[in-house]
Order: sequence, then structure tokens, then C-alpha cells
Amino acid sequence: MELYLVIAIFVGSILALAFALIMAKRVMSFDEGTDRMKKISASIRSGANAYLKRQYTIVLIFFVVMFVILGAMAIFGLLTPYVPFAFITGGFFSGLSGFVGMKIATAANARTANACRTGLNKGLRVAFSAGSVMGFTVVGLGLLDISIWFTLLKFVFKLDAAGITSAMLTFGMGASSMALFARVGGGIFTKAADVGADLVGKVEAGIPEDDPRNPAVIADNVGDNVGDVAGMGADLYESYVGSVISCAALGVAAFSGNDGMQFKAMAIPMIMAALGILCSIIGTFFVRTGEKTEQKLLLKALSRGTNLAAILIAVAAFPLIYFILGAEHWTLYFAVLAGLIAGVLIGKSTEYFTSDTYKPTKNLASKSETGSATIIIGGLGLGMLSTALPIVIVGIAVLVAFFVSGGTLQAPQMGLYGIALAAVGMLSTLGITLATDAYGPVADNAGGIAEMSGLDPEVRERTDALDSLGNTTAATGKGFAIGSAALTALALIASYIDKVQTMSPDINYDSFSVMNPLVLIGLFIGACLPFVFAALTMDAVGRAAQSVVIEVRRQFKKITGLMEGKADPDYAKCVDMCSRSSLKEMILPTVIAIVVPIVVGLVLGFYGVVGMLAGATASGFLMAIFMSNSGGAWDNAKKYIEAGNHGGKGSDQHKAAVVGDTVGDPFKDTSGPSINILIKLLSMVSIVFAALVVQVHLFG
Amino acid sequence: MELYLVIAIFVGSILALAFALIMAKRVMSFDEGTDRMKKISASIRSGANAYLKRQYTIVLIFFVVMFVILGAMAIFGLLTPYVPFAFITGGFFSGLSGFVGMKIATAANARTANACRTGLNKGLRVAFSAGSVMGFTVVGLGLLDISIWFTLLKFVFKLDAAGITSAMLTFGMGASSMALFARVGGGIFTKAADVGADLVGKVEAGIPEDDPRNPAVIADNVGDNVGDVAGMGADLYESYVGSVISCAALGVAAFSGNDGMQFKAMAIPMIMAALGILCSIIGTFFVRTGEKTEQKLLLKALSRGTNLAAILIAVAAFPLIYFILGAEHWTLYFAVLAGLIAGVLIGKSTEYFTSDTYKPTKNLASKSETGSATIIIGGLGLGMLSTALPIVIVGIAVLVAFFVSGGTLQAPQMGLYGIALAAVGMLSTLGITLATDAYGPVADNAGGIAEMSGLDPEVRERTDALDSLGNTTAATGKGFAIGSAALTALALIASYIDKVQTMSPDINYDSFSVMNPLVLIGLFIGACLPFVFAALTMDAVGRAAQSVVIEVRRQFKKITGLMEGKADPDYAKCVDMCSRSSLKEMILPTVIAIVVPIVVGLVLGFYGVVGMLAGATASGFLMAIFMSNSGGAWDNAKKYIEAGNHGGKGSDQHKAAVVGDTVGDPFKDTSGPSINILIKLLSMVSIVFAALVVQVHLFG
Repeated sequence: MELYLVIAIFVGSILALAFALIMAKRVMSFDEGTDRMKKISASIRSGANAYLKRQYTIVLIFFVVMFVILGAMAIFGLLTPYVPFAFITGGFFSGLSGFVGMKIATAANARTANACRTGLNKGLRVAFSAGSVMGFTVVGLGLLDISIWFTLLKFVFKLDAAGITSAMLTFGMGASSMALFARVGGGIFTKAADVGADLVGKVEAGIPEDDPRNPAVIADNVGDNVGDVAGMGADLYESYVGSVISCAALGVAAFSGNDGMQFKAMAIPMIMAALGILCSIIGTFFVRTGEKTEQKLLLKALSRGTNLAAILIAVAAFPLIYFILGAEHWTLYFAVLAGLIAGVLIGKSTEYFTSDTYKPTKNLASKSETGSATIIIGGLGLGMLSTALPIVIVGIAVLVAFFVSGGTLQAPQMGLYGIALAAVGMLSTLGITLATDAYGPVADNAGGIAEMSGLDPEVRERTDALDSLGNTTAATGKGFAIGSAALTALALIASYIDKVQTMSPDINYDSFSVMNPLVLIGLFIGACLPFVFAALTMDAVGRAAQSVVIEVRRQFKKITGLMEGKADPDYAKCVDMCSRSSLKEMILPTVIAIVVPIVVGLVLGFYGVVGMLAGATASGFLMAIFMSNSGGAWDNAKKYIEAGNHGGKGSDQHKAAVVGDTVGDPFKDTSGPSINILIKLLSMVSIVFAALVVQVHLFG
Repeated sequence: MELYLVIAIFVGSILALAFALIMAKRVMSFDEGTDRMKKISASIRSGANAYLKRQYTIVLIFFVVMFVILGAMAIFGLLTPYVPFAFITGGFFSGLSGFVGMKIATAANARTANACRTGLNKGLRVAFSAGSVMGFTVVGLGLLDISIWFTLLKFVFKLDAAGITSAMLTFGMGASSMALFARVGGGIFTKAADVGADLVGKVEAGIPEDDPRNPAVIADNVGDNVGDVAGMGADLYESYVGSVISCAALGVAAFSGNDGMQFKAMAIPMIMAALGILCSIIGTFFVRTGEKTEQKLLLKALSRGTNLAAILIAVAAFPLIYFILGAEHWTLYFAVLAGLIAGVLIGKSTEYFTSDTYKPTKNLASKSETGSATIIIGGLGLGMLSTALPIVIVGIAVLVAFFVSGGTLQAPQMGLYGIALAAVGMLSTLGITLATDAYGPVADNAGGIAEMSGLDPEVRERTDALDSLGNTTAATGKGFAIGSAALTALALIASYIDKVQTMSPDINYDSFSVMNPLVLIGLFIGACLPFVFAALTMDAVGRAAQSVVIEVRRQFKKITGLMEGKADPDYAKCVDMCSRSSLKEMILPTVIAIVVPIVVGLVLGFYGVVGMLAGATASGFLMAIFMSNSGGAWDNAKKYIEAGNHGGKGSDQHKAAVVGDTVGDPFKDTSGPSINILIKLLSMVSIVFAALVVQVHLFG
């Protein structure tokens, strides 16, 4: 059994990586276009490379420090000796996922632009292939990491199921730390460059978007790659691996005392992930479009692929559960289904609140008629209101997953395993959903290159059509990311309690009443963390953007002939400014995410930690949806006005909408998505430091 | 013992009401000034009267419906027969508190303006006396309500301690419902008028604030009275009564099985409230100032009074607890002290984040240099960050109050009583803190009247000095309101569990683990409620403001000679627009606050309800602080720029700051303060409908 398991997930991983390689070759087989296009693409590539190199250097220092700390703890018996190494691997693969994504995206941008010169379908194929490379690299590396460690722990170190999952949870912490650095750093970079370019270029100097005279234009395009691509890659690697291993851990806990079933329960999420890869690959073959730039048709092209993959896994999951877990546990299948459906519904809710084809965003756009204050109030209200539906959806999914799996209030173990399975179900087709998500920034970059190279306006139209679609798929992707984050975080809290129970046997799932003042204060502190985290990251964007603004203004003033197009701006300087400030700013939020759970544990004990995790999960879920949806709606309200409504481009209404969009930028691309990682990292850190906290704490 | 108790609280109540009467007479002894001043004041008064009359009519319908529902439940044995009547009384007194406050405020505005013609000190005396009328009416009526019901339940119906507190909790629900209507309705009115007046008058027509040519100027001044005065009065009546009765209920629970001690524990919060009245009255005699308009001196004048009152009650509480509860429980004194200190510290934190004498608001003002988007991002970040300190302060206060009172994780009853005592400690000097808070809108109105009557600029300077100080004292007042709301809400959750336990004896404080999926989903839904509530109230302000904007624009266009000052605008029309839209808009949010806890109970059972209450308390506390502080900081950043910094009045920076202030208006004066009431109302409703929920629920 165990051997088959390893082989299955190993095959899945190789399949994904091979498919990614094929897709990469396919991308590289296209032509980069004119010399000017090649040059611009090269600048973006080198900027992104330079940034990531510096980012990884800083992160390396962090990982070395953590390795030493974890090593010391292992020596004192507070951790198993595998932990420090697992931690490093998780971080390494997470970073690698982002790196590969960035590599292919920066290779594909000019190729997409060039392909769009021939036709829309060809452009879509290049961009989507690049997205697929990223998507399948993430899932392939994720499963590879899992299969290698599983092999080592099982066959070399001969650990039992509980020992295996416990060690594996720590590479989740490594992955999450890396992901948080990448998301926060990349998110600050991209928004600082974007805001800087817009504020001085568009607003003050009055030159169009992506104009080559704007000194921040390359930095802006680099930002798409390091934030939306590399950051997202690391982020989703973390989500994927996190959901699989936390589910495996809960499976082991659910069948405690039954060795055979434990391994089966552990195998389910891994094999489902491998199956999901297969379904995703099949799905990609159904993504193609005609030559019409209509959003509806393009969206159909992509949805055909993702929907097919979802249906396939929904079908395949049934025999998987029925035959592996046995007939008496077949109802767990509904937990998987609940997760899949919840993911789709949250995506639909996001779409409803942020797409300008529906009432909320149209209404928001109309608020531009009375100025920027009313559109800001409207957008904040929209985002806050949009939290209600996802809460209800996740609530129902949790209820269903819990009770169909046989969980009861007295013995919740099976139910918690069901909740974790729902998260795995949601993420099982990540290969293709991430492909549709990651192709967006490639198209965005292609548009920039088309503009800067002075290509035919028709080309820009096509890249714009692709880019605009990317905003919708990004909304769906966010639904999955946020929903799975909440479910995975819940699963991780359960894993934390399991861990505490191994050391304090009289503790169980029932021990954490909200009326216990330690739990309660933990809850308050936890709920506060996403607020503080959002504040810190927004402020960081503000400060970083400020420095870019000053630099861009300086170049406009000092470089003679710049506005006339006679002299080149110093692009590299802006890239450097963005790198430096974003790297400086990413440290504090990440360190807080790691230090707070330890401090809370040392002061309030494990009661406080569980309260903190529950509070952070609830408020983090809300804040992430609020910020993402407000930001998305402002963005699309602006685009809706640019399409000729409410006075169109250049009107006062448009200016008001630009203010909204600028506020929304850090909301949706920096703070919002980072919060998803935050809530999981808090749990991972708590799990790793559980032994310390159980032994040393002030209260409880 | 019981008789002494009734006499003590009855005397306290009469003392407060008598003092309020004396202060009212003192206010009325001043002159209203010129005929023009009298006329303007009369317009404001009649507008406020008309609005409140309509508001009370609508609320009356609601109360009649609720009375019937509660009556039916009482007939079916789901409630005791006292409940419907207690509910009505609570609502009546809460509304009366707001009404009296509004009456005196609209009588004092012209008198304050006129007094400011003589000197600053005289102006302060009039305004502060008016504030005192409101402050002491609220506490006086609060204690009167409590003493009447206590007498009835104890001596007429001969109930035991548990029966008494259980019935009393329901007049808390009446008070909270009324308070929510008043806060939301008044908050929408005042901000719709404010935004409408500013957007068209200041921004579009370019006329100064409070210019008599602005058709919305009277509505704006009416708004101060119905929102900041009547709304706040009803709100704080609810806070005051809620904290006292929830503490009494927990006292009874803590000494369960010991009749004598039960009555003593119940008496403590009531007698402390009565003592607090005495201390507050003494404090008022120390409020006076010289003729310098410097903020520091004025603030000192007020703080002298509030600080003295706080010190007196801190001293008086010791013998109270020592002699009534006995030497073995004297440590409960530290719970009171913890509450008092926490209230002061949260106020200081609010002041730090919102006053322009400190770095955060100064920094925020400097963000106006790069436009409205950056000042919005900055303000949102500031508000979110400012939640951290109050969370830690409340956390420490809860810990201290819990453990010094003898609470343990196994037997938390005494600890929960301690937490409730902390809330009472925080609010014991409400008489004077509310006086310093309520005088602000009076001074604000006085400034408007001075402007509209064309008084000497020196007069306006003095009213501005008073008004500006009002912003600072309002910040402190908010600290107490938010802090006490959180503690009272926690106490009410405990009371809810006590109530459930009487029907399901195997349920206790330990039964509500966050890993119970029903508790967990309840937690998610509860955490979501303040987001939804904030969204609804902000949207309501937006819609109401829109209607005012249209009306003001119409008048500017249609009434010939208006801009030249030759024709009078139709003030009454604007007042009517504001009334109509705010009354329409206040219904949905309030109904949600009442319906959701019932629905959650019927679906998720009492587990879900407890989760919901905990989630709503945590996230509501955060949202209330976030929104109040963001709003306060934007307001003061604007004032800081108007004082000549960053380009001063009329500059682009100023315009950016005005956008911030406009966004902040519904934040700090509508949504933020309503959330405080929301979190308590949710608990009160849950308590009243507990019997229904215990008998009928889908899960759990």
C-alpha cells in the first residue's frame, strides 16, 4: 500500500513537471518579435531577476537564522531532528515555484505580444501556456516535496503515520514563510511601481499608461512579474502543500489506533492531488478561442478547461474514496464535493461583486458622479458587504463536510478530517485554475511591451482583451485561495490541538471554550492581527511609492529631452528604488507573523494560541475578502468609466475613479492576498513551537 | 439590606436628576442673544423636534410589534410575564434620555454663542452645563429605571435574585434597540446633512461652512442635535444600564446558592453607580477656565473635573467592596480599578492616534502632499493599526479582572463577575465624562449660529476653541464607550450561558469550544456582522447624502437671488429630506441586529449563538476602533492643514484632506459608534430568545 502511494504521487508530480516542461518548450518556440520588443523584454527580465536574487539573499539569511533556532530546539528535544530540514525544503520549493513562474512569464511577455500581432487565439495560446508552466510547476513541485519526504520518513527513518505527518507540517511552515516574504515583498514592489508610475506619469505629466518616457514603466512591468507571478507562485505552492499535509495529519488523527486506515486516510489527499493534476492536464487541451475579442467568448474558452477539470475530479474522487477508505466511509466524498462547490461559489460571489457586468460595480461607478469621497465610501461598503456571502458559503461547506464525514460534537475527529478534505477538493485542480490565473500578468506585460514598442493599436486591443479577462479569472482564483486558506487554517488549528494533546493528554478539542479568558483574549489578539498586518503592508506600499514618486519626478526634471522622447529615462534606477524599499518593508510584517504566535503562546499558553488562531482565521478571512473585493471593484469601476460611461476617460468622474483604483491597489494586490498566507503561517508557527509553549507559559 | 439598597440607588438617581434640573435652569437663565440668533436657534429646535417626533413614531410601531411578540412568547411560557413590560421601559427611558439631551442642547446653542460674546469662560460654562444636563439625565434615568424595577420585582412580585436580574436584562434589550435606532437614524441624518452641505456648498458653490445661503445649513445643525446628542444619549443610557445589570446578573451567578451574598453582589454595581453620580457632581464644580483659547488650558479645565471624579470613585470603591462583600472578596476592588485604568488608557490611545499634536495625524496630514488616494490609504492604515493597543489594554484588563477576582479556568464565575465590575468601574463616572462629551455638539451648534448671525469673528474663534476641544473629549468618551461595550458584551455572553444552563443543566462555561463546528461557524458569522453592519450604514449615509445633494443643487438653481443673499433658501425642505431618508435607512440595520441572532440560534443552536456573540464582540471592537480612529484622524488632519500647514486652506493638499474627512464622517459618526450598540444588542436579543432557541434548533 505505502509503496503504491509513493509511486502514485511521484508519478503525479513527474507528470505535472513534464507537462510544465513541454509547455515551456512550446512558449520558447514562439518568436520574441522586433528588436525593440526583445530589448524591452530583456530589461524587464533582468530587473525581475535582479530583484528576486536580492530577495532570495535576504530570505536566505532568515532561513539560516531559523534553521539555527530550530536546530537548537531539536537538540533540546523540543522538536524532532527532521524539522529544521523540512523547514528548509518547504521554503526552497516555494521559492523555486515562484522563480520558475517568473522565468517563464518574463520569457513569454514579448512572445505573447508578438503572437497577438498574428491573432488573438495565438496570443491566448502563448499566454495560457506560460500560465500552465507556472500552474503545473507549483503542483508538481508540491507533490515532489511531499513524495520525497514521505519516502524518507517512511522507508528510511521508518516513522509511523503520526510521526510522518508531524514532520511534514513543518515544511508547511517553511513554505508559508517563503510565501509571505514573496507576497509581501512582491506586492509592495508592484504597487509602489504602479502607484509611482501613475501618480507622476499619468496624473502629473499627463502621459498615457505604459509610455516609454515614464521612468517607472519598466519597474511597473517588473512588478507584475515579481508580485503577481513570483509572489503568487510561492503563495499557492504554500496553499497547495498546506492543504494536503494538514489533511493528511487530520486523517491520521481521525483513525488513531488503526495503522492500516491511518495510511489510507493520509493517502487520500495526496492521491487526490495527483488525480487533480491529470484532470487539469486534460482540461488544458480544451482551452482555445476564436478571433473575437469579446469577453464572454474568451471567458468561455478558459472556463471550458477549468469546468471540465472540476467535473473530472468530482467524478474521480468518488471511486478514490469508496475503494481506498471503504464503503463505510464513502460519505466523505460529499466533503470533497462541498469544498469544490464552495470554491466555485465563492469565485462567483467575487465575480458578482467585482465585475462591471453586475450591479454592485456599476453602482460604484455611478458614485464617481459626486466625487472621490463617495466612490471611496461606496467601495469600502461594497467590500465589507461582500464578506457576508462567502461567510455563509464557507459556513455551510464546513457544516456539510463535518457532518457527512461522521463528525459529532462529542467526537469531531472524522468531521475535522472532512473539513480538511473539502480544502483539498477546492485546490485539487490548482494546476489549471492557477494557469488561468497566472496568464493574466503575462498578458498585462505583453500589453506594456506592445505599447512601448509602438506596435499596431490592434495588437494592444488584443492584449487588453486578454488582460481584462485575466482580471475576472484572478477574481475566481482569489475565491479558491481565500476559501481554501480558511478551511486549511481550521484544519491546522485542529492539528495544533492534536500536537498539544500528545504532550498534555488531558487536553482535547473540547478544552478551548470561548469563555476561558485565555482563549478569549487570544481570540481578540488573533482577530486584531489581520488589521495590523493590513495596516503595515499598506503603509509600506505608501512609503515605497513615495520614494518612487520622488525619483520619477527627479528624472522628469533632470533628464533633458525626456518628455520629447529624445533621451532615455534611467529605468534601472526606478527598479532599484522599488527593490530596495520593498525588501526593507517586507521584513517587519513577516517577522510579526512569526513572533506573535510564539509570544502569545509563552504568555497565554496553548489556550491563548488556539483562541488567537481562531480569531485570526475569522477576521483574516473577512479582511482578505473585504480588501480583495473593494480593490477589484474599484479597478473595474474605473475600467467601466474608461469604456465611455459616466463621462469616460479624462472626465472628473474618471479622476474620482482613479483615486478609488489607487486606494484599491494595495488592498487587492498587497494586503488582501498576504492575509491568506498570514493565517496559515500563524498556525504553522504555533505547531512548530508547540512543545516550547506547552513547557513554558505564564498563564493557563 | 435590600431596602437600604433600593434607597441608596433611588437617592443616587434623584440626586442626578435634581442636579440635571439645576443645571438646566442655569442654562435657561442665560440670554439667547439677538433676534436673528433666536430665530436660527428656533429653526434648529423645531427641525430637531420634528425629526425626533417622526423617529419616535416609527420606533413606537417597532416596540408595539415586539411587545406583541414577547407577549405571545410569555403566554407560551418561553418568557416570564415581566419581560414585555421591562422591554418597553428600557426603550422608553433610553429614548427619553436622548430627548432631554436634545431639548437642552437646542436651548443652549444660541445661549452659548451669546455667552461667547462676553467671554470664553462664560461660553464654556453654558455649554458644559448643557452637557451636564444630558450626562446626569442619562445616569439618573438609568438608576431610576433600575430602582423602580428592583422594587417591583423584589417587594411586589417577591422574586429571588436570579429572577430579578433575569427580568432586568430584558430592559437592556429595550434600551439597546432604542439606542440602535437613535444612533443609526441620527447618525445617518447628521452625516447626510453634513456631506450634502459640504459637497454642494463648500466644494461646488464655494461658500464657507455654516453660510446662511446654504440650504442644508440648518439641517446640518439639526443633525448635530439628533445624531451627536439624542443618538449619543440613548446610546450611553444603554451602555450604562447594560453594564450595571449584566454585572448584577453575573454577581448573582457567582454566588449561586448563597442568598445573602447574591443580593450583596447584585448591589455592588448599583451602589457603585450611585456613588459615581456623587463623585461626578463634585467633579463638575472644578470645571472652569480663564480667557485664553489655548487647547491645553481648556483641556485642563475639563480634565480637572473628570480626573477628580475618577480618583474619588477609585477611592470610594474600596470601602464599598470591602464592607459589603467582606474581607475575603476585597481583591475584586482591583477589577474595578483595572476597568477605570483601561478606560483612561484606551482614551489616551485614541487621543494619540487622532489628535494633531501627535505623530500619526501629523504624518497623515503630510500624505495630502501626494493627493487624496494616499491620504485615504494612510487613514485606513492608521485606523487599522490603532486597534492593536486597545486590544492589548482590554486583554490585560480582562486578565487582571478575571484572576484578581478569584476566577479560575475551572470555576470562572467569580472572574466573570470581576470582568463585569471592570465595565461598571469604567462607566461609573459617566455623569461627568458624558457632560464633557455632550458639550461638544452644543459648542459646534453655537459656532454655526455665530456664523449665520454674523457675530463678531472673535465669538466664532471662541466657539471654535470650545468645539475643537470637544473633538478631543469626544475621543476620550469613545474610548470609554468602546471599552465598556467590549467588557459588557463579554459579561452578557456569560449571562447568556447562565440562562441556557437553567434550561440545559449539562451546559456550562466550558461547553463552547472553538473546535465545535457550530461554535466556529457562529464565530465566523458573528465576526462578519460588524462588517455588514458598517457597510449598510455607510451605504445608507451615501444614499441619504445623495438625496440632499440633489435638493441643495436644485435650490441653488431654482431660487433666484439665493447666492446674492437676497432670497432665503428653503431650510425646512432639506431637514425634511434628511429626516425622511434617515428614518427609512435606519430600519434595515436594526432589524438585522435583531433577526440574525434569532436565526443563528434556530439553525445553529446555542452553540452557534455563543460563537456568534464572541465573534461579533471581537470583530465589532476592532471595527469600532478602526472606524472611529480613522475618521477622527482624517478630521483632525484636515483641521491641521486648515491651521496653515501643508499649504493651508484652499490648497490641493486641503482638498485631498477634505476627501479624507468626508470618508471619515460616516466612519466616526455613524458606523463606528453604532457597532458598540450592535454587539450588546446581539447578546440581549439572544438572552431574551434563549428559551425558544433551547427548545427549537436544527443543529447542536
